[in-house]
Amino acid sequence: MTTKQDECRTDFSRLFEPKTVAHVGASAKPAAGRFNFTEYLQNMGFPGKVFPVNPKYEEVSELTCYPSLSAIPEPVDLAILAVPASGCVEVLRDTPADKVRFVVIHTSGFGEMEKGDLEEEVLALSRAKGFRVIGPNCMGIYSQPGRIGFWQDHWEIVDRPGTVGFASQSGGHAINAIKGGMDSGVRFNKVVSLGNQMDVSINEIVEFMGRDDTIQAMGLYVEGIRDGRRFLELAKEITPRKPIVVWKGGITENGRQAVLSHTGAMAGNEEVFAAAMRQAGIILVDNMQLMVRVLRLLQPPFSLPGGRLAIFSPGGGNTVNVSDLFSVQPSLSLPRLGLETMEKLKGLLPEENVDVKNPVDPGAVGFLVMDKLIEAVGNEEEIDAMVVLLTADYLSNIKREESRLLVLETISSTISKLTRSIGKPVYVLMRKERQNHEDIDRYYRMMVSKFIEKDIPWADGSFKNAAEVFGLLADYAQHVKRSNHRAPDGIGGRTP
Amino acid sequence: MTTKQDECRTDFSRLFEPKTVAHVGASAKPAAGRFNFTEYLQNMGFPGKVFPVNPKYEEVSELTCYPSLSAIPEPVDLAILAVPASGCVEVLRDTPADKVRFVVIHTSGFGEMEKGDLEEEVLALSRAKGFRVIGPNCMGIYSQPGRIGFWQDHWEIVDRPGTVGFASQSGGHAINAIKGGMDSGVRFNKVVSLGNQMDVSINEIVEFMGRDDTIQAMGLYVEGIRDGRRFLELAKEITPRKPIVVWKGGITENGRQAVLSHTGAMAGNEEVFAAAMRQAGIILVDNMQLMVRVLRLLQPPFSLPGGRLAIFSPGGGNTVNVSDLFSVQPSLSLPRLGLETMEKLKGLLPEENVDVKNPVDPGAVGFLVMDKLIEAVGNEEEIDAMVVLLTADYLSNIKREESRLLVLETISSTISKLTRSIGKPVYVLMRKERQNHEDIDRYYRMMVSKFIEKDIPWADGSFKNAAEVFGLLADYAQHVKRSNHRAPDGIGGRTP
Repeated sequence: MTTKQDECRTDFSRLFEPKTVAHVGASAKPAAGRFNFTEYLQNMGFPGKVFPVNPKYEEVSELTCYPSLSAIPEPVDLAILAVPASGCVEVLRDTPADKVRFVVIHTSGFGEMEKGDLEEEVLALSRAKGFRVIGPNCMGIYSQPGRIGFWQDHWEIVDRPGTVGFASQSGGHAINAIKGGMDSGVRFNKVVSLGNQMDVSINEIVEFMGRDDTIQAMGLYVEGIRDGRRFLELAKEITPRKPIVVWKGGITENGRQAVLSHTGAMAGNEEVFAAAMRQAGIILVDNMQLMVRVLRLLQPPFSLPGGRLAIFSPGGGNTVNVSDLFSVQPSLSLPRLGLETMEKLKGLLPEENVDVKNPVDPGAVGFLVMDKLIEAVGNEEEIDAMVVLLTADYLSNIKREESRLLVLETISSTISKLTRSIGKPVYVLMRKERQNHEDIDRYYRMMVSKFIEKDIPWADGSFKNAAEVFGLLADYAQHVKRSNHRAPDGIGGRTP
Repeated sequence: MTTKQDECRTDFSRLFEPKTVAHVGASAKPAAGRFNFTEYLQNMGFPGKVFPVNPKYEEVSELTCYPSLSAIPEPVDLAILAVPASGCVEVLRDTPADKVRFVVIHTSGFGEMEKGDLEEEVLALSRAKGFRVIGPNCMGIYSQPGRIGFWQDHWEIVDRPGTVGFASQSGGHAINAIKGGMDSGVRFNKVVSLGNQMDVSINEIVEFMGRDDTIQAMGLYVEGIRDGRRFLELAKEITPRKPIVVWKGGITENGRQAVLSHTGAMAGNEEVFAAAMRQAGIILVDNMQLMVRVLRLLQPPFSLPGGRLAIFSPGGGNTVNVSDLFSVQPSLSLPRLGLETMEKLKGLLPEENVDVKNPVDPGAVGFLVMDKLIEAVGNEEEIDAMVVLLTADYLSNIKREESRLLVLETISSTISKLTRSIGKPVYVLMRKERQNHEDIDRYYRMMVSKFIEKDIPWADGSFKNAAEVFGLLADYAQHVKRSNHRAPDGIGGRTP
């Protein structure tokens, strides 16, 4: 017997681009800080129809409010349920089988609260009626092409098409992945908060995003994967052409205990699973910052860097620090520069307070000849990519805003030009030395926006953070190479 | 034979609080961004006399400019030499033995440039004349009590007395330690950039700062220590009563190569030395951010936390993450809360989307009863300290600036009050989820300033960063305890 569920098992296109959305539990008097999905959709310019559902109101946000899902005069592609757990059962019971395609159960208090019975009832009802359910205990869906979101700030990015897919078992992390990425150059295509994965599982989403051509890199926060074998199979198939970045929560005994109360998922032998994930080409991270840093550099038009880096960092302490921290990463090296190149650098730089070895210390005035330095080093065969340290503090030495903007514009176009002419990526490593200072914070944002605008790849944080990121990218580049595949344009298109 | 040098071997009081300072190489036309020590001293309200020295000018910065050190009509406590390396030899040769007490040789191009001869000549001259020399290849001195500095922004902090001493073999790191700490609640007492340590060594400075009662914690960036045995002896003697935080550069083969070009120092077997440093109670860090984070929490009136923490972090993903990352630190634990305490928390919180285990997830509305939650948990015997996650993003939910300030004021006084009434430290873990956003950056700075103003201890960065910091503090607290010493008030005064 083919159930309705089978027909649309993993085709989530209509979930991410619904034509009609119902918001069950919509309120005419929404409390501040409460989820107000109806308003979110309106703010995002959702092109389809929104149906607030609540027997208490006739109108919500200037839209007709319906007493129930079945009272809505047309089929509903996506129903968002934001009513208490017991209410969810009633809603699903009262809804005809062909009324709704996808259900997001925002409500928590199911499996993670040891109320398994309720969850089983919801699952049985949904299976019988052919509804596919996201959640419960989740935020639901952000979709740039579908103009749908789950947080009050999502309207700010809905006009920015992107290639990053993100799926999370934690609603908070789904919100924070977008918050961390939205002004940092990560352009999201689709994000889904999966919650308890009662029905739709992370594997189905990975499979769907693997096939979705508009997605070119995937980030996942997972706590427990029901079918780990299948997950690894999917990863093996996808990673040679599309990177998957995984942050796994619950890797310690304490963490596993916390997972139980959070999403009710069970975790297995973590070390074995981590090794298998690495084997399958998955990029493993252990915090949100690193997730955002890696995803940023996995977007077109950036290509993957190899592990042989040349680094430009002013300051003797910095060259020592760079040498230490990049050496720790097995897949990275800082090749010695050829004698000829070093002679060229010597000719360009003053005699003192510089270093013409790799890492290159261009000293205090090296900025003036940075283009020539990068060119000389970039033409070395042994070098895959270059990283240039720039600090926001540098801009504070420039007195007038106009000059500041000009300097920034010059730096950006120089780097863009060099990347093209040398044919190797030039990364900026962005940093601010002075912390918690209004001007420096502003210069930092100025630089970040400019690099995003000009498609210049940038990393951030300490040298340790940067070494981590480049180590992961180099590992992944090797995986792509080993897999003998040509990854999609931009990322795998120019692997080292 | 007692040389003049012996008399003042390690008494650097007059170095840090000179009555007269000469700036050799002062310019009437200083280039932007160039070191202008005369002006720095003027801006800092240096209470003694400043003598610019340069045969080319009669006046510099409205001060009489002298053709040479010997032409200055009084003894000079500190002469800052900012002239080319060869010029330094001449200056020292022409200066009578009793003219100058301390010399800072800012100039680079000595030992680190394989011009050992020049350095030897300078050393021989200084030894013969009894000058003690800092450098060459260094920034020199910042001293809050002496009102002397080496960078254009040091005037901003000179009215803030502090208890932190910092010594660095990298000039850049000395600048950046202050930049990183100045708006982040690190109050510096004395900072010295040592450069090549031709004469005055890191050991002498450690010994001096160890005896200096105004300094209650020390941070060191070191690349090579000439007498490692003596350094460890000093550390063993000092750390039971005063913490020493060390960032060691040149810990890898590549790093050691870079050290050679940077300060010309030799490094030995790093792993053995690191183990010996830990054994001596030294707190080891590997980047500037971590250095600043740790130093901040080693200042009065903060006490050292033990390793048994209770953490309050809203969001299920966060509790999993906290559990994972704090478990990785051997000296930290998240003790189970007693049943009675958990019942108390249950009574205070809604039923769903919360967790009353440790880490505690107070959910979305838990802020309203945070004082009662902290009090209940803080009274558990098994808990040494509490950590409360606060995000700058939280303030963005408050519409009016006035209310925002009020909320912040309330949070701060509640935490201060609780710390006193429970008698255990309550730390804030500051974070911003949304990156590179003007408002959030501003709220973040608002919170940081308020916590500094109210003497509330705060950590920052990811949970991983925080776990690292608390792990180091707990290790050190154990060291103090083992050493059976009572550390100075504030830090060791209330060890767990």
